[in-house]
Amino acid sequence: MSNNKGFFTLPGEAGFENLTLELAKKWGADVIRDSDGTKLSDEILNSGYQIYSTICLIRSDNEWAKKHRNWLQQNYLMSSPKIAYASTLEIDPLDGYYREQFMMNEEGRDEFWQVYDRTTGTLLNLADWDYNVETKKVVIHNATPWHKYTVNFLAVRLWEEISMYNHITNEWGDKEHLMAIEPRYPEVRAHIIEWLDDWCKKHPATSVVRFTSMFYNFAWFWGDDVRNRNLYSDLGSYDFTVNPIALREFKAQYGYKMNAEDFINAGKYNSTHNVPSKKYRDWIEFTHKFVVDFGKECIDVVHKYKKQAYVFYDDSWIGVEPYGDRFKEFGFDGIIKCVFNGFEVRLCADVKGVQTHEIRLHPYLFPTGLSGEATFAPEGNPKQDASRYWVNVRRALLRKPVDRIGLGGYLHLVEPFPDFCDYMEEIADEFRFIKELHKNDLPYTIPGKVVILTVWGKLRSWICSGHLHEHPEIDLTNVLEALAGLPVDVEFISFDELIQNGIPKDTMVIINAGCADSAWSGGDYWKDEEIISILTEWVSQGGGLIGIHEPTAVNFSDSYSSYFKLSHLFGVDRDLGDRKCIGKYQYKLGDSHFIMKDTLNLDVMMKKLEGIYITDSNVTVLLESEGTPLLTSNEIGNGRAIYLSSFSYSPEMTRLLLRAICYAGKKEQAMNTYICDNVYTDCAYYPENHKLVLINNAGFRNAAKVATPDGLTITIELKPYELVTRNLLDK
Amino acid sequence: MSNNKGFFTLPGEAGFENLTLELAKKWGADVIRDSDGTKLSDEILNSGYQIYSTICLIRSDNEWAKKHRNWLQQNYLMSSPKIAYASTLEIDPLDGYYREQFMMNEEGRDEFWQVYDRTTGTLLNLADWDYNVETKKVVIHNATPWHKYTVNFLAVRLWEEISMYNHITNEWGDKEHLMAIEPRYPEVRAHIIEWLDDWCKKHPATSVVRFTSMFYNFAWFWGDDVRNRNLYSDLGSYDFTVNPIALREFKAQYGYKMNAEDFINAGKYNSTHNVPSKKYRDWIEFTHKFVVDFGKECIDVVHKYKKQAYVFYDDSWIGVEPYGDRFKEFGFDGIIKCVFNGFEVRLCADVKGVQTHEIRLHPYLFPTGLSGEATFAPEGNPKQDASRYWVNVRRALLRKPVDRIGLGGYLHLVEPFPDFCDYMEEIADEFRFIKELHKNDLPYTIPGKVVILTVWGKLRSWICSGHLHEHPEIDLTNVLEALAGLPVDVEFISFDELIQNGIPKDTMVIINAGCADSAWSGGDYWKDEEIISILTEWVSQGGGLIGIHEPTAVNFSDSYSSYFKLSHLFGVDRDLGDRKCIGKYQYKLGDSHFIMKDTLNLDVMMKKLEGIYITDSNVTVLLESEGTPLLTSNEIGNGRAIYLSSFSYSPEMTRLLLRAICYAGKKEQAMNTYICDNVYTDCAYYPENHKLVLINNAGFRNAAKVATPDGLTITIELKPYELVTRNLLDK
Repeated sequence: MSNNKGFFTLPGEAGFENLTLELAKKWGADVIRDSDGTKLSDEILNSGYQIYSTICLIRSDNEWAKKHRNWLQQNYLMSSPKIAYASTLEIDPLDGYYREQFMMNEEGRDEFWQVYDRTTGTLLNLADWDYNVETKKVVIHNATPWHKYTVNFLAVRLWEEISMYNHITNEWGDKEHLMAIEPRYPEVRAHIIEWLDDWCKKHPATSVVRFTSMFYNFAWFWGDDVRNRNLYSDLGSYDFTVNPIALREFKAQYGYKMNAEDFINAGKYNSTHNVPSKKYRDWIEFTHKFVVDFGKECIDVVHKYKKQAYVFYDDSWIGVEPYGDRFKEFGFDGIIKCVFNGFEVRLCADVKGVQTHEIRLHPYLFPTGLSGEATFAPEGNPKQDASRYWVNVRRALLRKPVDRIGLGGYLHLVEPFPDFCDYMEEIADEFRFIKELHKNDLPYTIPGKVVILTVWGKLRSWICSGHLHEHPEIDLTNVLEALAGLPVDVEFISFDELIQNGIPKDTMVIINAGCADSAWSGGDYWKDEEIISILTEWVSQGGGLIGIHEPTAVNFSDSYSSYFKLSHLFGVDRDLGDRKCIGKYQYKLGDSHFIMKDTLNLDVMMKKLEGIYITDSNVTVLLESEGTPLLTSNEIGNGRAIYLSSFSYSPEMTRLLLRAICYAGKKEQAMNTYICDNVYTDCAYYPENHKLVLINNAGFRNAAKVATPDGLTITIELKPYELVTRNLLDK
Repeated sequence: MSNNKGFFTLPGEAGFENLTLELAKKWGADVIRDSDGTKLSDEILNSGYQIYSTICLIRSDNEWAKKHRNWLQQNYLMSSPKIAYASTLEIDPLDGYYREQFMMNEEGRDEFWQVYDRTTGTLLNLADWDYNVETKKVVIHNATPWHKYTVNFLAVRLWEEISMYNHITNEWGDKEHLMAIEPRYPEVRAHIIEWLDDWCKKHPATSVVRFTSMFYNFAWFWGDDVRNRNLYSDLGSYDFTVNPIALREFKAQYGYKMNAEDFINAGKYNSTHNVPSKKYRDWIEFTHKFVVDFGKECIDVVHKYKKQAYVFYDDSWIGVEPYGDRFKEFGFDGIIKCVFNGFEVRLCADVKGVQTHEIRLHPYLFPTGLSGEATFAPEGNPKQDASRYWVNVRRALLRKPVDRIGLGGYLHLVEPFPDFCDYMEEIADEFRFIKELHKNDLPYTIPGKVVILTVWGKLRSWICSGHLHEHPEIDLTNVLEALAGLPVDVEFISFDELIQNGIPKDTMVIINAGCADSAWSGGDYWKDEEIISILTEWVSQGGGLIGIHEPTAVNFSDSYSSYFKLSHLFGVDRDLGDRKCIGKYQYKLGDSHFIMKDTLNLDVMMKKLEGIYITDSNVTVLLESEGTPLLTSNEIGNGRAIYLSSFSYSPEMTRLLLRAICYAGKKEQAMNTYICDNVYTDCAYYPENHKLVLINNAGFRNAAKVATPDGLTITIELKPYELVTRNLLDK
C-alpha cells in the first residue's frame, strides 16, 4: 500500500503543542488548522506546517457588532396562531421564540409586517391592527371571534446560530454570544473588508483562509420552551437572508415586492424539501449574486496577501451554491465539506471551479456528537464512530476522489483514546492510497446515465437538504447515499430543464423519489402534460423509470384519472381514501426476480405505503406486505418501470437499487462485470492501472466474488472493514 | 326468563315441509317466508302461519324482460385509460368489463357519451371522435401522442347483480340470468303494477309482501378478469339509477344537465365515502322522489289486497332512503334490515314511519357466507358464526329494540347442524326477552347527546356505506359499532345543518372521524370559516370534541396555518411531508388517565398515523407509538378536545370511546352509574321495571361490577355469552 504522507488537515490546539505535532506526524498532516473555540500558538504556527485559519466574516468582530446593533442580520418570523375570543385580540409576536436569539425589529412595520386571519387565509388591512410600543404587542381591531390570527414580522438576530449551538452544546457558560452582522449594509461591507485586510496583514503564517462559509447561515429558529427548542431548521433555506435593505433592493432589481408571506408561507417557510415558488427562486438568485459579488471582494483581499481562500460548505453556506452557475466567479481555491456519508463526498468531489476538494471527517472533536452522542466523553467510543462514518465515505471515494481529508475541533480530546489515534492513521493512509488509484484513471462504470429528476435539479446535486441522520425519512437522500458508491454515472436535472432540453443523452434510467408535493417528487410540476408526455414517450420507446414512495404524484384528481401521474407506466397508483370502492386487482406474487437476487429479507427493509394498488394486470408484484405491493415491475412498450414503496439506505437496498437500475435500463448483463456478489462489499476497477479494489463495509469477515469481462471470477476474502487490491495483470 | 313465542320469521322450503314446521315450532316462528332460490309448498302455505313472500319487482318477470331489452336498467361506465401512441387512438369502451353484466348502449352517443383526455383533464369535442359500429370501438382523431384517454358511455345491464352474485356463489350453472327492468319507462311501470296486481290476486295465502327493496341496486361493476372481478362496489351509490329517460327528466326538472362525468368523476364515480357534489345530491333527491312516488303506487296495490308491505333494506335499496324526509310517504308497514353488527340494528330500530322493524340475522342459510367462509358446508360451524353476530346484535338490542327477528336462505342446510338449531332457539328466546324489557320502559342513558358530524348527516344515520367487514378501515363505521351498545344518545348532523341550525341542544360531545376528503371527515366543508367558528366557540365555552384519524382536515394550506382546521382545539396536527423542517414538540407521556382506565394494550389496538405531531405544549399525550402520538387530550377555554389516530372496533376501544365521551363532555361521574367495570360485558338498566341486565360478550366466563346511583355495587358472574337479569327492587 502506497504510504505517501500529506493531504491531511489537523486541528491544532494551543497549550497542546506536543500532541499537535506528534499527531501531525502520525496522521501524515501537511496542514494545521484552528477551529471554533481553539487557537494556534506561535510554536504551532512556526512548526513548518501549512496553516489554515478559520474565519467567519459575519461574526468575527463582535466588539464592532455590539456597537452597531442596527446592522445585525434579520429574518421573518410568524407569531404562533392565536384565537380571537372577542373583537380585539392582542398578540405578542415573539411569544414562544427564544429571546436570546430573536428581538423584534419594530421599524417599518407598515412596509414589512403583515397580519393574517389564518382561519380564512385573509391578509388584514393596515387599518385593522396597531402595534403597542409599550407592551410590544400587536392589537387587532375588528377581529372575528373564534378565528386564528398571526403576525408576520421582521426579527433581529442577537445570537449567531453556530455560536449559539456550540455555546450551549459545550456549556460555554458566560462566554460571549457572537452576533451576525448584515453585509447588505455598505458600512458592514466596508468594515468586513477592512477587518479582513487587517487580519491578513496580522497573520503572515496563515497559508489558507478557510471561510466558515460566507455570510448567511441556514434557517434555524429556536424556541423558548426547552422542550420545544427546535422550532424550525432547514440546511438549505434562505430565510436568514432577509432584511429591509435586501427587500428594497430586490424590489428595485426584480420590479416586484417580496412580501413577508412569501417567506413565511403560513408557517411552513421556504423549506428546501417543498417545491419553491418562482418568487423564492428569484430571491435565491438575488442573494446568490450578492454573496458571489461581495464574496469575490473578500477573496480578492486574501489573494492580495498571497494566501489561498477555501470555503467550508455547511453552516453559513447560504448563497454560496457550489452548483450554481456563478460559483466559479468567487475565485475560491478550495472547498471543504463536512461529511457523515458518501453522498456528501460526491457533493464535494463534483464541485467545479475550485482546485482543491477537501472533506472534513467525523467525529468532530467535541465532547458531544451532533446527534447528542457522547463521542469523546469517558463513556464514548470515537473509534467506532469514526469507522461508521469512514465506511460510508470510503465507498464514495472509490468512485470519485477528493484531494484532502481533515478533522476539526479540540485535539486534546483524543488523548485518552489511543485506539482512535491509531485508527485515524489507518484512515489517512487508506485515503491517500485511494486518491492515488484515481491518478490518470477512471473507475469502470456501467454505460448510460442515471438521471435524478427533481424540482431543484443540478442546483441540489448530491444533496436534498442537510444530513441523512437529520431526516432519514427522505427517500432521495437514502437513494443518493446508495448511488454514491455504485458504478453508475449520476446526473441531476430539474423539471424546467427537462421541458427545455428533454432527457439528457445516454440516459439509461430516470429516478423520481419522494413524498407528494415535495421538491424531490415534483409537486405541481406533475400537472404539466408536457412532462408526462416526454416521459411516457421515452419510457415507451425503451427507457427505464424508477419511482419511489409517491413518484409523479399530485393530488388534483377532478378530471384526471390517477394520483401518480405516471401510473400508466408504473401500473401502480395510490388510494388516498377516495378510491375505497374501486376493487383492487388480486395479484399473485412473482417468482424470484433478477432485481431481488443477492438479497434476503427485503420485505423487512421496505416500508408499506398505505393504499398502494395495482392498476394494470401486467404488473409483476415482487414484494408485498399484508396485501399491499412494496416492489413492482412493469413493461410498457419497449421500456420498463419499477416502483418501490420506500427506500432506506442499507447494503441490501443498495444492491436492490443497482439491480433495479440494470433491469429498468435493460443492462442486466452489467451485473456480471466488476460487481461483488456479496452485498456487504463494494469494488471498483481502475482499468489504466489494472487494479481491482474491494472493500468490506461490514464489521465481520466477508468473501466476495467478482467477475471480469474476460470470464474470470476472482474470489477475495476480506477482514472486517478491510480494503484489498488485486492487480489484474498479475492474475 | 319470559318465553312467549312469536316475532320470528322462518325461511320455509318446499320439499322440506316437516323440517319447516318442526323448526317453526322450535324457534317460535309466527311467520314463514320464501327466499331467493326457494319456494313454499301448499302444505306450508296452509299450515296456519303468516306468510311473507319476497318480491323483487324489477327482476320478477324475466320472460317479459327478455322481450323488452330496450327497457333494461343502465348506468355510466368509464373505459380503462388508454395511451395514445399516435394521433389516432381506438378504444373498446367495454374492455375489461364483464360482458355478461354489461352491453354498450350505442344510442344517443352525442347526447350521453363523453371522451376525455385524462392527461390534461380535457373534454374532447364531438368532432374529435367517432364510434365505429362495426368494431364497436371509439376512434379518437387528433389525439395527442402519449396522453391517456377514456370514454364515458352508457351501458345496459344484462344481469341483475344479486342474481349474478347468488348464481355464481351457489354455482347455479345454467339457471336463468335475471335482468333488471327500468321503471322510468312508463311501459315498465305499467307492467310492474299489472304484474304485482296479478301476483297479489294469485297469492291469497301471503300476508306480507316483502319487497327485496325497490328498484335500484347499489353500484357493483364486475370485471372480465377473474382476478379483477370486483371493479367497483358501493352499497350507497346511485350510479345504477342512470338512463336516458332519467337524464332527460332530470334536466327538465332541475334546469341543468347531468353529464356523464358527473357520475364518473374520472373513474372514482360517486362513492358514498367521498364528499358528494351538489349535482349528485340533486340526483339523489330526484331519484328518491321517483322511487317514493312509484313505490307508493306499488304499495297501494298490496294494500288493496289487504296484505302488508315490508321493505328489505339492502340490495336494491337505492332511492328508498329510510332516513330521507319522504320515506314515510311510501306507506310501508315494516322494514327489514339484514344485520351483521350492532349499528345495523340501530339503523333499523330508529327508522320512523313504519310499524314493524325486523332484523334478518346472519348467517344467511347459504352454503357459503358473504365473506366466502364455508358456513353450512360440512367443515362449517354455523353456531359459532351465529354467536359471533348475535353478540354484536344483542348489545344494540339492549339499547333500542326491534319488533322481530328472522332468517333467510335454504332451511334444509341447517339439518346437519343440530347445535345451530338449538342455539337459534336460545337466540330467539333471548330476543323475545330483551324486546319485553323495553315495554313501557327506556334504558338508562347518560344525559347529553353525542353528535356525529358528517357531510351526509341524518340521511346516513347509523351507517357509512355497507357492512363493517367489507370496509373495516372506515373509522366511523367502527365508532358506530361501539356506540350501538353504549348508554348514550346519538344524533347525526350534516355540515349544512350545522351552519343552518347550529349545534343541537343538549349536545355533550361532537365526533368527527375519518380520513381527509371523505364524506365522514368533511373534506372541503372545512374550508368554511363559519363551521370553524361555530365549533371553536362551542368547544371554548365548554363543549367536548373527539377527532379520529384526520378530523377537520383539508389540504389547502397556502395561507392557512394547519392541515387539521381545528388543530387549535386538538393541539395536534398532521405533517403530510411539507412540514419536515418544523420542529416537533418533545412531549412527555401523561400518567395514567381517566380515559385509559379499565383497558390494557391500547397501544396495540391503535394504529399510528404518520406525521401526527403536537402543536401546543398544553396537550397531554396519553399514548404514542415510536414518537408519534396516538391519543391526546387538550383543554381549550372551558372545553376539551380529544384526538385518536385510529378507531377499530373492539371491547377495549369501545370502553376507551365511552370514557373519552364522558371526559370530553365533563361527565366523568357518569362512569359510576350503571356501567360495567369489565370491558367484555355490557349492561342496561330499565328504570320502570327496575331491571338491570348484564351481558357477557366474550366466549369465556366474566365477572362484572355495576354501581347504582344510591351507592350500591352489584357483582355478577357471567358464563360465556350469558345474559343475566337482576331486579334492583329485590336487592
